[in-house]
Amino acid sequence: MTASQAKPLIAIHGGAGTMSRSLISATQEQAYHAAMRVIVLAAQQLLAGGGSALDAVSLAVDMLEDCPLFNAGHGAVFTHEATHELDAAVMDGATLRAGAVACISRVRRPLRAARAVMERSEHVLLVGAGAEAFAQACGLELVAPDYFSTELRREQLERALAADSTLLDHDAPALSFVGAHSGAAPIDEERKLGTVGAVALDERGNLAAATSTGGMTNKRVGRVGDSPLIGAGTYADNRTAAVSCTGTGELFMRSVAAYDLCARMAYAGQTLDAAAQEVVMKVLPAMGGRGGLIAIDARGNLSMPFNTEGMYRAFARLGETPQTAIFG
Amino acid sequence: MTASQAKPLIAIHGGAGTMSRSLISATQEQAYHAAMRVIVLAAQQLLAGGGSALDAVSLAVDMLEDCPLFNAGHGAVFTHEATHELDAAVMDGATLRAGAVACISRVRRPLRAARAVMERSEHVLLVGAGAEAFAQACGLELVAPDYFSTELRREQLERALAADSTLLDHDAPALSFVGAHSGAAPIDEERKLGTVGAVALDERGNLAAATSTGGMTNKRVGRVGDSPLIGAGTYADNRTAAVSCTGTGELFMRSVAAYDLCARMAYAGQTLDAAAQEVVMKVLPAMGGRGGLIAIDARGNLSMPFNTEGMYRAFARLGETPQTAIFG
Repeated sequence: MTASQAKPLIAIHGGAGTMSRSLISATQEQAYHAAMRVIVLAAQQLLAGGGSALDAVSLAVDMLEDCPLFNAGHGAVFTHEATHELDAAVMDGATLRAGAVACISRVRRPLRAARAVMERSEHVLLVGAGAEAFAQACGLELVAPDYFSTELRREQLERALAADSTLLDHDAPALSFVGAHSGAAPIDEERKLGTVGAVALDERGNLAAATSTGGMTNKRVGRVGDSPLIGAGTYADNRTAAVSCTGTGELFMRSVAAYDLCARMAYAGQTLDAAAQEVVMKVLPAMGGRGGLIAIDARGNLSMPFNTEGMYRAFARLGETPQTAIFG
Repeated sequence: MTASQAKPLIAIHGGAGTMSRSLISATQEQAYHAAMRVIVLAAQQLLAGGGSALDAVSLAVDMLEDCPLFNAGHGAVFTHEATHELDAAVMDGATLRAGAVACISRVRRPLRAARAVMERSEHVLLVGAGAEAFAQACGLELVAPDYFSTELRREQLERALAADSTLLDHDAPALSFVGAHSGAAPIDEERKLGTVGAVALDERGNLAAATSTGGMTNKRVGRVGDSPLIGAGTYADNRTAAVSCTGTGELFMRSVAAYDLCARMAYAGQTLDAAAQEVVMKVLPAMGGRGGLIAIDARGNLSMPFNTEGMYRAFARLGETPQTAIFG
């Protein structure tokens, strides 16, 4: 089957982490399934109309950022200083063009800022106030920093500060388990590896990937994780795969996880799934890395491995019913 | 030959770019050779005393940062706003630990800040004020931002602003050639791809890599290039290679150049030199990328390819006379 014969496909993730299914209601769980279904349906419709993979991942991540259930955009976690620092990246597998922003706090839609960097600057990565000034110059919507705040995220910060935990985004052993508060989520929010992302294949056989995150609750100000780094948390190349990762970012950075998957396909001849499984089930765990990724290739293959107990994920092929899942 | 039997080795670079040999005096050229010789001799001595590869690259980059001839630390170029934004990264090939800082303007020795991130934080990359606060908390020396300024770099900014060039760090065609001012350098400073870096192999067979840069003259505030990004401008893994890049950073980011070299060795079975040549002479030029890299493996092989007319570079094996070079 040649690339152009594969059905267009969208896949998304909303973070990975430790399960707490027993602590939440079926209603709460269904809210996540419903949110993901709406998002993949919208991207599926865009692809059905001949839209590009790049536009499909942009739309999906826009919607994931806007949804307060996920740690990106509105609903992003707080830093140690009770601020928000948002990161995002996008990559076009057809041209290997890429754009990213990190440590921004005033741009409503971080992924759109990343795409503006890709399309309207000579650079790939802009950070902080310089990135915000660029986004503003591009006409993107700015918001007051507290736009991103939600009561749930503020409660998480307060608990993290009380526990004196400096790294809450994985299973911090010092933390007591807190899952019974109002707003409990299927994946323990205190231990969730919070990031959202999307990968897509369009009717022309082009791939794209996008990732956006609010980072880790109580993180050090100025910390940049894997999400906005091309090759670490995000990569797309028509010849191999489109990849978006979620997990303990530093390990994905040190192992260059997204690009490693592509390199295994390009140089070792591994299939998409074999490469994805190696990265998530062998390379990362050997270093202490936890999380998962979503990956597709130009032949329409899909792989969504994770080494945690759950990962919010969904996908839809053209003309088929969307599938959503949370647990293993 | 096993790894531990290879002679310890240090290699450094001081940027790559367009030649202007005809415009400078032999005296000026010799200043660069002399500076590089002093630096590799110091690192060679450290390795001879049983020092680690990590300490050798740290020492070499410390000295390159302090030398005003090179665009890193003191002597860094100016941003569009006439400020300095410095980036640095270090990686330990034995453990795959890594640390990096970006967009800092008040830490005297950016590479030491990167190493502090690696050794004293849970993170890999800190940027901006958060990175500076961390460096200060670690006891690193802070300086006034104008510490990094030199008259030569200010003249370069003024010419760039006059030429309205937004990207001077490669061969900007809009720029008239200016090489005859006092302080002219062997590689045209206006067109130089300015970065410094070092790679080393120690007597235990461990590899390390470090890179530091002042970025591009007249660059947009907040721009982060490849130097501080693990896998793009810097990577080290005992099983494959230690790599430090210099060039048009965005292309090195999009191709994940440093890690690509390592992946070619790991998955395609390429030799160090074959992998380095592929990356620098094929992959990067096909995307419009210009520059070079230095790379060594645990068997003591060395490769220093560049696709520009010159690259400041030097190396020394234990017990051997250092070699320095500028042109092709």
